[in-house]
Amino acid sequence: MKELKIQPIENGTVIDHIAAGNAIKVLHILDIPKGHSSIVSVAINVKGHLGKKDIVKIENRELDPREVNKIALISPKATINIIRGFEVADKFKVKLPKEIIGIVRCSNPTCISNANEPVKSRFKVISQDPSKIQCYYCEREPDDIVKRII
Amino acid sequence: MKELKIQPIENGTVIDHIAAGNAIKVLHILDIPKGHSSIVSVAINVKGHLGKKDIVKIENRELDPREVNKIALISPKATINIIRGFEVADKFKVKLPKEIIGIVRCSNPTCISNANEPVKSRFKVISQDPSKIQCYYCEREPDDIVKRII
Repeated sequence: MKELKIQPIENGTVIDHIAAGNAIKVLHILDIPKGHSSIVSVAINVKGHLGKKDIVKIENRELDPREVNKIALISPKATINIIRGFEVADKFKVKLPKEIIGIVRCSNPTCISNANEPVKSRFKVISQDPSKIQCYYCEREPDDIVKRII
Repeated sequence: MKELKIQPIENGTVIDHIAAGNAIKVLHILDIPKGHSSIVSVAINVKGHLGKKDIVKIENRELDPREVNKIALISPKATINIIRGFEVADKFKVKLPKEIIGIVRCSNPTCISNANEPVKSRFKVISQDPSKIQCYYCEREPDDIVKRII
């Protein structure tokens, strides 16, 4: 089955060290396949140095900081490799900023950020790994962040 | 990025010629990654002889007929390759039987199969590609089969 070997990509992004089983959530964050027609390859439950992991490889696309922050929330150990001309042009570990704004919906239904006011959700990042965040307005710490990503 | 080449598998299943963009639905049908820890690789929007397609490759797993029928419903052109000892032991195109039972929920809320009676859903297959089915009890033809797969 030679056709199944996935070749290195010329330009694009490789997201490595995704927590095992989370690759499909990463695709969902990146609106794949719905919003994009580029070639994507995914490996689930492969062996890495630190146990099982997932990998997502996307041709001809680089991620914006908002997308990187969402990936950091669900997979704090992920690394992003930017590929240009078959070379790794940049490589970095995802890292959440001190605050994330407009990325996660607060789990408190009475929070001002859920009140149809012109107020974007705003969270303080209190832990990178595991990712823990706390609402700037009501101090609620949402337990299931993945489901609350906007 | 040598680590990203996906090698041929020793034992397992390759689902080829999945309609482009439908690989994630196939994973959902197969309860991946939730129910399984085996290595899975996915290629989305790759070039095939007949245009773009998706491929799903699962190590150390062979599909049961019920799973194959579900794949046939969402991707009538898919082919299943059973791999044993690095060789293609069997290869076939998915094909729906004349009737499918207990696989799709009827879209008619008043259908007997939706009435908490001990009656399994039962559909006549009226077209393989595109897949069209008709309820044996109420004759309704569900339009969005994918969402109704049980």
